[in-house]
Amino acid sequence: MSTVYLNGEFLPKEQAMVSVEDRGFLLSDGIYEVTPAYRGQFYRMNDHLKRLGGGLTDLRIDYNPEELVEVQEQLLASNDLVGAEVSIVYLQITRGVAERTHYFPTSPTSPTVYAFAKEFHRPSEERWLEGFGAVTVPDRRWSRVDIKSISLLPNVMAAQAAVDAGVDDALLVKNGVALEGAQNNIFAVKGDTLITHPATQEILHGVTRSVIIEIADALGIPLQERPIQAEELEDVDELFFSGTTTEVRPTVTLDGKAVGSGRVGSVSKAIYGAFRKEIGQPLDEDC
Amino acid sequence: MSTVYLNGEFLPKEQAMVSVEDRGFLLSDGIYEVTPAYRGQFYRMNDHLKRLGGGLTDLRIDYNPEELVEVQEQLLASNDLVGAEVSIVYLQITRGVAERTHYFPTSPTSPTVYAFAKEFHRPSEERWLEGFGAVTVPDRRWSRVDIKSISLLPNVMAAQAAVDAGVDDALLVKNGVALEGAQNNIFAVKGDTLITHPATQEILHGVTRSVIIEIADALGIPLQERPIQAEELEDVDELFFSGTTTEVRPTVTLDGKAVGSGRVGSVSKAIYGAFRKEIGQPLDEDC
Repeated sequence: MSTVYLNGEFLPKEQAMVSVEDRGFLLSDGIYEVTPAYRGQFYRMNDHLKRLGGGLTDLRIDYNPEELVEVQEQLLASNDLVGAEVSIVYLQITRGVAERTHYFPTSPTSPTVYAFAKEFHRPSEERWLEGFGAVTVPDRRWSRVDIKSISLLPNVMAAQAAVDAGVDDALLVKNGVALEGAQNNIFAVKGDTLITHPATQEILHGVTRSVIIEIADALGIPLQERPIQAEELEDVDELFFSGTTTEVRPTVTLDGKAVGSGRVGSVSKAIYGAFRKEIGQPLDEDC
Repeated sequence: MSTVYLNGEFLPKEQAMVSVEDRGFLLSDGIYEVTPAYRGQFYRMNDHLKRLGGGLTDLRIDYNPEELVEVQEQLLASNDLVGAEVSIVYLQITRGVAERTHYFPTSPTSPTVYAFAKEFHRPSEERWLEGFGAVTVPDRRWSRVDIKSISLLPNVMAAQAAVDAGVDDALLVKNGVALEGAQNNIFAVKGDTLITHPATQEILHGVTRSVIIEIADALGIPLQERPIQAEELEDVDELFFSGTTTEVRPTVTLDGKAVGSGRVGSVSKAIYGAFRKEIGQPLDEDC
């Protein structure tokens, strides 16, 4: 049975309940974060906590996240995940319980803080080498998706559109620009150059996205941060999604058509290989 | 103490709790409705239930709302609201409890159904005649706001922008068009003509909006359903918001500047007078 954290207590998930008046439940008035741990070692937790802090500031939720370092460590321990190859800790902070109004409550509230940990199973290397599928989906989200909010219905519907199409990822397109996935960023490869959307308010500023930019720099792969037109995608050589649980996921078919050669490309392989080294879990062999 | 409804039970609000795994809490994966009752008589409940049914279909939540007629009646009775001049019943339906994934759960879930009732206090006629203030705010919402979803953080932030500006309403502007409020629709008056945005995916299809269109027709007031450019607002004679708890709320200052004469206009008064008759609560005197 899974142990979760809720408002200062560790308890079985089945007993973790929130009030129907929680503004997270009524108004999606909150933010979240997902941090990975590799064999019990958190990876870039500070980057995740920094982004969380930015979201708290944007939403004017008065909460000091410093306790969360220990909460996350303890969740791994309580759930026997210290030895797991990959585990994730999910954190969610809402504005708390108040009478329902659209505007912020006029009296201070106590934020609701919820966290759980679970094991994450990445695809096998064999599966990875086959590549994955994606569909383009209209980006119906709000215009501040750099805030990692729980106001996720548009993302839910986009992710379901991918499932309906029998593929792994949704590529969100707004005003002709291919921005990112429903829960991950994207990178395209054209020739020897890696291209990804700049970190504006129109994409989430992924921690894995930053890691890949560092890796590209270290490997000497030229990088352009610029909008990618959806119609450009017909001419790209490679495409991959990135994210905490996505890691590096190469797309070999988009809308049923082959991307580039239709096989996982050399830049995607080089980046993924370096990513796996970076997190201390190198690939079994060079793929 | 307030009695609420949750998943088949009537219970004190303090005891009404949902799982942290509710997709409403984690992903704002749900919809809501607010239905008014005047002295215990529900007004256009069928219109509200029909919109709710549309939202359930859009989100593919498998729930038959027919029990909600009786639930709403009983909430009024349990909370001693049958004699209240105005009360409202809030309904919320989420996809229910499931392990967190962006896409829909792969096994069927039992939707979470929550409802509460409370008294609503409208402003006095004297206060109403003074008029209200509004500010324009960028519309940051998603592109399916015709779905009355609980994915409301953008609305929350817009409503708070109005509070920060010390006014009553936020007028949301997208691509130069003044669409509606953070929780209500808008109508402008130019000469003798009433103008409101067409019922597209860019506005909520308000029940009160429909009632006002019927009233305009009955009163012989010409109506245009067309987009209103934000810059047109400098030249309109009157402006008002409409909604279940907004009723008809006349705006006399927008962004600190007078709207029209800066006083509540004759068309707004005529519409509000007819609205109050329509709901069986006529104004004390013709204002």
